[in-house]
Amino acid sequence: MADSKRAVADIFNSAIAAAAIATAWETGFLDELREQKKVDVNKFSIQNDLDSGSMQGLVTALATVDVVKQDQGTARAGTLLDEAYRAKSLFHWLALGSGGLFSRMQYVLRNENRTGKFYQRDPVALSYACKDINREHFDPAFWQAMEGLDYKFHSIVDLGSGSGERLMQVLERYPGTVGLGVDIASASLKVAAAEAKKRGFRDRLSFVVGDVRALDYRDEFANVDLLTCFMMGHDFWPRESCVSSLQRLVKTFPKARRFFLGDTTRILLNTDNTPSKYAVNEDNVPIFTLGFEFGHALMGVYIPTIEEWEGVFAEGGWRCVKTHLIKSQSLSVLFELEPVTINAP
Amino acid sequence: MADSKRAVADIFNSAIAAAAIATAWETGFLDELREQKKVDVNKFSIQNDLDSGSMQGLVTALATVDVVKQDQGTARAGTLLDEAYRAKSLFHWLALGSGGLFSRMQYVLRNENRTGKFYQRDPVALSYACKDINREHFDPAFWQAMEGLDYKFHSIVDLGSGSGERLMQVLERYPGTVGLGVDIASASLKVAAAEAKKRGFRDRLSFVVGDVRALDYRDEFANVDLLTCFMMGHDFWPRESCVSSLQRLVKTFPKARRFFLGDTTRILLNTDNTPSKYAVNEDNVPIFTLGFEFGHALMGVYIPTIEEWEGVFAEGGWRCVKTHLIKSQSLSVLFELEPVTINAP
Ligand SMILES: C[S@@+](CC[C@H](N)C(=O)[O-])C[C@H]1O[C@@H](n2cnc3c(N)ncnc32)[C@H](O)[C@@H]1O
Ligand SMILES: C[S@@+](CC[C@H](N)C(=O)[O-])C[C@H]1O[C@@H](n2cnc3c(N)ncnc32)[C@H](O)[C@@H]1O
Repeated sequence: MADSKRAVADIFNSAIAAAAIATAWETGFLDELREQKKVDVNKFSIQNDLDSGSMQGLVTALATVDVVKQDQGTARAGTLLDEAYRAKSLFHWLALGSGGLFSRMQYVLRNENRTGKFYQRDPVALSYACKDINREHFDPAFWQAMEGLDYKFHSIVDLGSGSGERLMQVLERYPGTVGLGVDIASASLKVAAAEAKKRGFRDRLSFVVGDVRALDYRDEFANVDLLTCFMMGHDFWPRESCVSSLQRLVKTFPKARRFFLGDTTRILLNTDNTPSKYAVNEDNVPIFTLGFEFGHALMGVYIPTIEEWEGVFAEGGWRCVKTHLIKSQSLSVLFELEPVTINAP
Repeated sequence: MADSKRAVADIFNSAIAAAAIATAWETGFLDELREQKKVDVNKFSIQNDLDSGSMQGLVTALATVDVVKQDQGTARAGTLLDEAYRAKSLFHWLALGSGGLFSRMQYVLRNENRTGKFYQRDPVALSYACKDINREHFDPAFWQAMEGLDYKFHSIVDLGSGSGERLMQVLERYPGTVGLGVDIASASLKVAAAEAKKRGFRDRLSFVVGDVRALDYRDEFANVDLLTCFMMGHDFWPRESCVSSLQRLVKTFPKARRFFLGDTTRILLNTDNTPSKYAVNEDNVPIFTLGFEFGHALMGVYIPTIEEWEGVFAEGGWRCVKTHLIKSQSLSVLFELEPVTINAP
C-alpha cells in the first residue's frame, strides 16, 4: 500500500523529470554538470538568463529521479546522470518534440478526430533531438559502413535529408565528392541550404524538395553512386508502397551501387500478429521503444519489424549485404543494400 | 550499469504512462477494468470508436508501469491499478491539462520569453481534472466542514467558482439556500450557468464575472453568510496582495460568518528560505507536489506554505478556527476562517 503510493508518485515525478532532462540538456546544464562536477543553480540561472524559480524546480525534478543530487542550491551528479545523458535526445524527442502529440492523447485517440492535421509536434525541437540521436546512436554504424565501401563514391543523395547535417559531414570527410539532399519539408531544406552556404560547400551540396516515395528520374540523379536514408524509412510503408518505392529508387538512381538505410524498428506493439525474434516483453521495454511505437500508432504511421524489412528487399530490387544492429536506441538497424541488377558502370 | 539503463528506461516509459493513465480514465477504460475485472482491448476500442492501434499502445504503456497486466489482447488489473485510479485526476492535470506548459519547458524557462501569454494549458482538460480532484481529495474535508457549521447559512458565494459544481452540490444538499459564483473566466461561467439551468436551479444560483482579489461591495453580497474558495487561494498571493484581498473580503461580504478556504500548499521548492515543518525531502516527494510547485514556478505564480497562510489571516481580518490537512494530494489544506470582528447579525 505505502509501496504502491511510492510507485505511483514515482511515475508522476518521472513524467516531469523526462521534460526536465531534455530541458537541462538544451540549456547546457547537463554539460556544465558533467564538466564542472558541480553547479550553483542560481548562478547558472543568472548566467543563462533563465528564471531561477523554474530552474530550482527543474533541478529538483532531476533530483527526484537520481539524475542529480542537490544540496543547498548546489547540484552534483546523481547516480543516473551518465545514463540520462546518453539518452538525452530520446527524452527531448519524447517530452519536448512530441509533447504536442502525447499531451493531447485523449483527442488523438478518437477516430472522429483522426482526419486532416490531427496532431502537432514541435519541428524545431525534433530536429534538435535528431542531430544528437544520429551522433549518439546511428553515427558509429554509419561511419563504419562508409569506411567499408569497396568503391570510391563521387555523388551521394540523402533521402529525407532534414537538417542536411549528414551530407555536410560526409562531404567534409570525403573531398571531391558532391551531395544532394531530398526532403518533403521545404522549411527544413531552407535551413539546411543556409547552413551549407555558411559552411562553404558552394556547388558541392544542393537540396531539392521531393517526396522520396515517388521520385522521378532527373538528370542530376544520373551519376549518383551512393544513397542514404535515416530515420524515415518507415515512411515508405505499408509493405506494397515500400516495395514500389524501393523498385523506383533502383530506376531513379541508375548508378547507385550502395544504399545505406537506417531506422528504428518495431519490437513491442502488435508482435503477436507480426512476430519478430527481436520482440521484447512488456516487463523489459528498453528506452525509446514505447515512445516511438506508440507515438507512431497515434500518428497512424506503420512501423515495420526487422523481419518485415528483410522480407521486402528482394522484391524491391535490392540485396542486403550487411546488417548493423543498433541496440542503444530501442532496436535500430542500418542495412547496407546493393541493387540486385548491377547496372553497367 | 544494466540497472541504470533499466532505471532510465523506466523514467522514459513513465512519462508516457502518465498521459496513458489520464487518457485511460477519460475514455472510460479504467472504470471498465475495475468493474469488469478484464477488458478486451480491441472490443473496447471498437465500442468507443477509438483507434485500436493507439489503444494497444496505451494499454502497453499502462503495462510497463504495472497498472494493467496484458495477455493476448486482454487487459486485467495490475498491482498499481487502484492507486493509479485514486491519482487519475492528478495525472490528467499534469499530462493533459498542463501538457502545453511542461512540454514547452525549454522556452518557458527563458526570461526573454516570460512576457505576455507565455504558456498555454488546456482549460477543458483542467476543468475535467478539477472536478475529480475535488471529489477525490477536497470533498471529504469540505462536507465535514459544512456539517460542522454552527449556524444555518442562507447565502453562499464561491470565489473562483470554475465549473460551478461545488455550488450546485451545496444547493442540492441544503434546500432553501441561494448561491452565487464569481470567476474571472467568463467562458467557465457560461458553461457553469448552462449546467445550472439544466439542473433546474433557476434563481437560486447565479454567476458573475469578477476578480476576487479586488471585489467591490454589491447589493447582492449584502446577505451572504458563507464564503468558499477552492484551488485558487494561491492566486491571492504574494503576501501583501493576499492581506489586502482578505481585508477586502471582510468588507465586501459584511455578513459572512465563515470562509472555507481550500488549496494545495508548498512543501518542496524553496523551503530553505521559507521553512515549513511540513517540508518534504527530495527522496520522498509525494504525488502531485512536484508538478504543482514546479508548474506554478514555470507560470510565475507564488505558492505559499501552510505557515505562510497561517501568518496572514490575523492581518487580513480573519481567525482560523479549524484546519483540515489533506495529505492525499501533496499537502492540501482546508482552513475554516471567521471574521475577527463579528458583524452585528
Ligand atoms: C526524423 S527526420 C530525419 C532527418 C535526417 N534523415 C536525419 O537523419 O537527421 C525525417 C525527415 O524525413 C523527411 N520526410 C518524411 N517523409 C518524407 C518523404 N515522403 N519524402 C521526403 N522526405 C520525407 C522529413 O521532412 C524529415 O526531415
Ligand atoms: C483550479 S480552478 C478551481 C475551480 C473551482 N474552485 C473548483 O474547486 O473546482 C481555479 C478557478 O479560479 C479562477 N480564478 C483564478 N484567479 C481568479 C481571480 N483572480 N478571480 C476570480 N477567479 C479566479 C479560474 O478562472 C478558475 O476557474
